[in-house]
Amino acid sequence: MVRVAIAGASGYTGFELMRLLATHPRAELRVITSRARQGLALSAVYPALAGVFDLRFAEPDPAVLSSDIDCVFTALPHQAAMDTVPGLLERGVRVVDLSADYRFRDAAVYEQWYQPHKTPELLAEAVYGLPELHREAIRDARLVANPGCYATSVILAAAPLLEAGLIDPASLIADSKSGVSGAGRGASLTTHFCEVNDGFKAYKVAEHRHTPEIEQELSRLAGRPVVISFTPHLVPMTRGILSTVYADLRPGVGDREVDQAFAARYGDQRFVRLGPGGALPSTLQVRGSNYCDLGWKVDPRTGRVIVIAVIDNLTRGAAGQALCNMNLMFGLPEATGLEQAPWQP
Amino acid sequence: MVRVAIAGASGYTGFELMRLLATHPRAELRVITSRARQGLALSAVYPALAGVFDLRFAEPDPAVLSSDIDCVFTALPHQAAMDTVPGLLERGVRVVDLSADYRFRDAAVYEQWYQPHKTPELLAEAVYGLPELHREAIRDARLVANPGCYATSVILAAAPLLEAGLIDPASLIADSKSGVSGAGRGASLTTHFCEVNDGFKAYKVAEHRHTPEIEQELSRLAGRPVVISFTPHLVPMTRGILSTVYADLRPGVGDREVDQAFAARYGDQRFVRLGPGGALPSTLQVRGSNYCDLGWKVDPRTGRVIVIAVIDNLTRGAAGQALCNMNLMFGLPEATGLEQAPWQP
Amino acid sequence: MVRVAIAGASGYTGFELMRLLATHPRAELRVITSRARQGLALSAVYPALAGVFDLRFAEPDPAVLSSDIDCVFTALPHQAAMDTVPGLLERGVRVVDLSADYRFRDAAVYEQWYQPHKTPELLAEAVYGLPELHREAIRDARLVANPGCYATSVILAAAPLLEAGLIDPASLIADSKSGVSGAGRGASLTTHFCEVNDGFKAYKVAEHRHTPEIEQELSRLAGRPVVISFTPHLVPMTRGILSTVYADLRPGVGDREVDQAFAARYGDQRFVRLGPGGALPSTLQVRGSNYCDLGWKVDPRTGRVIVIAVIDNLTRGAAGQALCNMNLMFGLPEATGLEQAPWQP
Amino acid sequence: MVRVAIAGASGYTGFELMRLLATHPRAELRVITSRARQGLALSAVYPALAGVFDLRFAEPDPAVLSSDIDCVFTALPHQAAMDTVPGLLERGVRVVDLSADYRFRDAAVYEQWYQPHKTPELLAEAVYGLPELHREAIRDARLVANPGCYATSVILAAAPLLEAGLIDPASLIADSKSGVSGAGRGASLTTHFCEVNDGFKAYKVAEHRHTPEIEQELSRLAGRPVVISFTPHLVPMTRGILSTVYADLRPGVGDREVDQAFAARYGDQRFVRLGPGGALPSTLQVRGSNYCDLGWKVDPRTGRVIVIAVIDNLTRGAAGQALCNMNLMFGLPEATGLEQAPWQP
Repeated sequence: MVRVAIAGASGYTGFELMRLLATHPRAELRVITSRARQGLALSAVYPALAGVFDLRFAEPDPAVLSSDIDCVFTALPHQAAMDTVPGLLERGVRVVDLSADYRFRDAAVYEQWYQPHKTPELLAEAVYGLPELHREAIRDARLVANPGCYATSVILAAAPLLEAGLIDPASLIADSKSGVSGAGRGASLTTHFCEVNDGFKAYKVAEHRHTPEIEQELSRLAGRPVVISFTPHLVPMTRGILSTVYADLRPGVGDREVDQAFAARYGDQRFVRLGPGGALPSTLQVRGSNYCDLGWKVDPRTGRVIVIAVIDNLTRGAAGQALCNMNLMFGLPEATGLEQAPWQP
Repeated sequence: MVRVAIAGASGYTGFELMRLLATHPRAELRVITSRARQGLALSAVYPALAGVFDLRFAEPDPAVLSSDIDCVFTALPHQAAMDTVPGLLERGVRVVDLSADYRFRDAAVYEQWYQPHKTPELLAEAVYGLPELHREAIRDARLVANPGCYATSVILAAAPLLEAGLIDPASLIADSKSGVSGAGRGASLTTHFCEVNDGFKAYKVAEHRHTPEIEQELSRLAGRPVVISFTPHLVPMTRGILSTVYADLRPGVGDREVDQAFAARYGDQRFVRLGPGGALPSTLQVRGSNYCDLGWKVDPRTGRVIVIAVIDNLTRGAAGQALCNMNLMFGLPEATGLEQAPWQP
Repeated sequence: MVRVAIAGASGYTGFELMRLLATHPRAELRVITSRARQGLALSAVYPALAGVFDLRFAEPDPAVLSSDIDCVFTALPHQAAMDTVPGLLERGVRVVDLSADYRFRDAAVYEQWYQPHKTPELLAEAVYGLPELHREAIRDARLVANPGCYATSVILAAAPLLEAGLIDPASLIADSKSGVSGAGRGASLTTHFCEVNDGFKAYKVAEHRHTPEIEQELSRLAGRPVVISFTPHLVPMTRGILSTVYADLRPGVGDREVDQAFAARYGDQRFVRLGPGGALPSTLQVRGSNYCDLGWKVDPRTGRVIVIAVIDNLTRGAAGQALCNMNLMFGLPEATGLEQAPWQP
Repeated sequence: MVRVAIAGASGYTGFELMRLLATHPRAELRVITSRARQGLALSAVYPALAGVFDLRFAEPDPAVLSSDIDCVFTALPHQAAMDTVPGLLERGVRVVDLSADYRFRDAAVYEQWYQPHKTPELLAEAVYGLPELHREAIRDARLVANPGCYATSVILAAAPLLEAGLIDPASLIADSKSGVSGAGRGASLTTHFCEVNDGFKAYKVAEHRHTPEIEQELSRLAGRPVVISFTPHLVPMTRGILSTVYADLRPGVGDREVDQAFAARYGDQRFVRLGPGGALPSTLQVRGSNYCDLGWKVDPRTGRVIVIAVIDNLTRGAAGQALCNMNLMFGLPEATGLEQAPWQP
């Protein structure tokens, strides 16, 4: 059994980790911490978990988080993660960090979009935790940087096209839409039911912080610097991300080449499903699961390909992928504890 | 392994059965049937289940449903169930019927609220599948009649009060509210998103067909005929039922007696949770689970007790309870395959 | 033209007043105040009103609110209203107060459910602003206490039955359900989209502060003290209240008597509509309007009548009724500025 | 008074026309027709309108629709419109057609995307009813073709950039999102609440029929053929469209040029509002109104401009714009009857 702790367990990502760990056959959740909820019983914060776990939120102390623990999930805001992770690694536990703090190979990029980095020396060893791209490196990692939710969907949508050289990288545009749970459990006017209901909107246009991590991975895949337009939107729903990715096709590229690129890239991937015959996915069909479902359309009128990627932002976009990374790090089958069917309706 | 078939698998209850069976460690889903979807791949109707089950909808033929099958879930409309169940029993399979057709001990009651009954002789042996009330009988049953969703919530809310003789049975009122999935997957103006959104309403006031099955069970518990007011409402949400149950307290009954009645009745029940210190539950906290969560309030101003019961209408109100019944029928621990944590948010 | 000011204009009730005043042909909105938003342009807080009003939030100062003003709407929390209203009356303006501070004839009742009252002497002259019950008194009032949203729906549902003596007053139960906008625009976990969505719940059971104002009015109508059970619930929708009111019928009372009581009471009321042939209303059919729509069902099995009342909580339950009161106070036709059709879908 | 009839009045567009006509001071609704609802009282189909209009659905007969009528709104499916409009024009009434049948100057384009055209000779005189682009022609038109909902938002977003020559027309991409009411009132799995809730999806990617009308208008503005990528999505909400429009900026074009183009184009337009300081709009802020609100962002990293346009699909996207066109056709001020403030929350 992998002995597990969660730092920052009171938010939605923390909850999702607990939900999945509740039926994970090879992991045991032993410690949860929360600065704000310290001392409270888990069931007082989440009545849903009464009778599921008999835990209490502990102080977010590295000693508590690492004592008789094999793997810590740090579900903390960026910067707070940077303050916590090094101490955990020093104590010999392995870490899956769900913040942005260790997602970048280049500290300068991080510092341009976030703030000064306190432990840039860890960036070299941290592995970007997207299994379809970095599975082998994840197995051996001490520190895995779990990808951003938007980034997961956009990278998986574009990767086959870039790897196969079918598109002009400079033409990439990702128009993404997320449910409200992506904004976290904190109360604000932005998440107020009455402001969200019938209130679809874009936000942080051309300045969202998932942009550079998307660009880092796409550049690696393209073999040259890629700059993209990325536009996030807020959807009046709880869960789900749908990204619509546009790119100009190289001359001569058509349906066949695109179909083949996706089939070749993802045919054997457990958690990527390709719409049969170009069927386009809905966020509902992956809800609560670790799947990324993909559909696409080649448009000969404009010479573009449009790829649709859907994930559950809390599962594949956060906790599910994090558990998948833990599975890989501890030699378990990738899908262990992640076999639950998506939730309809 | 219990070998399982589902008759009428294309609706929401059918889906929910499949979702839960996907991770049930002691059951194997072998056959699904659907008159409307016959011949189609399951993944064509529910893309969510691509890669989860590799099944095709078969013809709803008793031979197909019973060949190398131990247990059939009949998720059919009433009347259609009556046409199917006897043939299955004859072939030696055991049946959990999710329709209303076998819920009544008295054929006359069924015929008053529904239509003529074709196999009234089966009513004597059919067991009303509410484990908290009929667990032992369920274990030995050949035919279990799975309770209605509303009925499950109302009966569980009122049972301890009636058994302990704390209330006047004639005063019982159940004001219930259900999410839209209770109306099924069929398209109609009633389930149209734009009619439901901001469109809360009551329906079938004083004439809903769950009334007599509630009365049957409450009468049994009270030891005398109980007639109740039952009012269902449609809530702009997908899942969940909340029932608000009112009753006049017997003279001298207060908090202590009511608390004790609930604790005594449900303290050892795996799938009933009691709100600590009178905390009132939300439908969200049981979503996707087999829990029924209960809270209550004694109001000395009016001499009434108000009990709040929440369930997931598709899980505890249908498929989860049905699986729980199957577990009991086949000697498995009651919670097998039902350990998934509720889904938040 | 009635010259109007709104104190506490930044919340949802304030917005709704402004929305309706935007097309009111006989009123002119001149001043809006807000402690929190003081100094901001209205369009910065509500982009919806850019180009509709060119106003700025002023300091909530009685002098500002009463200078060249005929009527002030005080949309303030209780207690804050008590601090503001007397100074306005002294300056000679007339006031429609949307808080609870002046709804009670008996200061002791207010103090039992709220807090000490600072100006109990005003309670005698304040008029409870439900036009169907107090139209004539409203015309002459200096101070109108606008009813609570829940109270409006419950009182209108029960009034004809009590006035006609058709029910046992001691048996009254009101099970009410409200959209989230009733909780105001403040951010909290309670109004977080992800907690509300699929999260139907009851709250303040047997202790909600609208209870005593309902009882005050129903007692007046019944001619003797009435105590009721009142249970509010939160519905995952933005607008609307539906109240389901239960009462035991007096012996011999049936459909005909009940139908006649409603027809006689409301046949000539502009803003009450009776469902034809017992049709039950949905909250959607009154959204954005000042209507209260009523339907009912006599249940001979239980000897009860069930009345369904729907209103828009922000319009009939607050701003619309307040404007209707202003119309009456200033000699305008009751429906002036309130003729907009309900909003579908 | 303009005497008005609506053909096909039972759908959401028909309702929205009625809602707005209810308070239009210079128009009188005299006739409504509906093939499916013929003979029914309006209030039986829309209880919301009880007491607002006392009308009955008549047979959709040209004689009925044109007798003592000045203006007919044809809210019919395409093809049905083509069968009805010529007969109305012959009888001397003026028509605002809300279908696609008369939106195209070139019958061949219509026939490529729809079906054979029966009265192509009317295309030359029909005016595309987007007031900001064709106001003068609308005034004199006998037949106005009301624009598609998506088209309205995309054209208004792109027009200033094309007219000012700031972008490469070949780079235009419109990623649009619509509420469910755009799918009409017909019941289908697509509009089922449980399939929509948490079920965001794209549809008709690169093949939606609003594409050619967008291209027709943008080509006119650009002075050369424009081909665009247009991707519609379905949002779990009732009302609203948000279009995110991407284009490559010409070299040397920056914030200043873009700001000026929008200000110059729309500064004096009653129903277009520009976000102050680049503020990006939400669909909520225009709900129920005829406004189109615009925001934009110049992204120097990618050399692109991103424009966000929001409208209410039923008001500006259909009925509101249609009434605006009627106002222009009959010499009334453009905003007559359209002054209602948007609806929050």
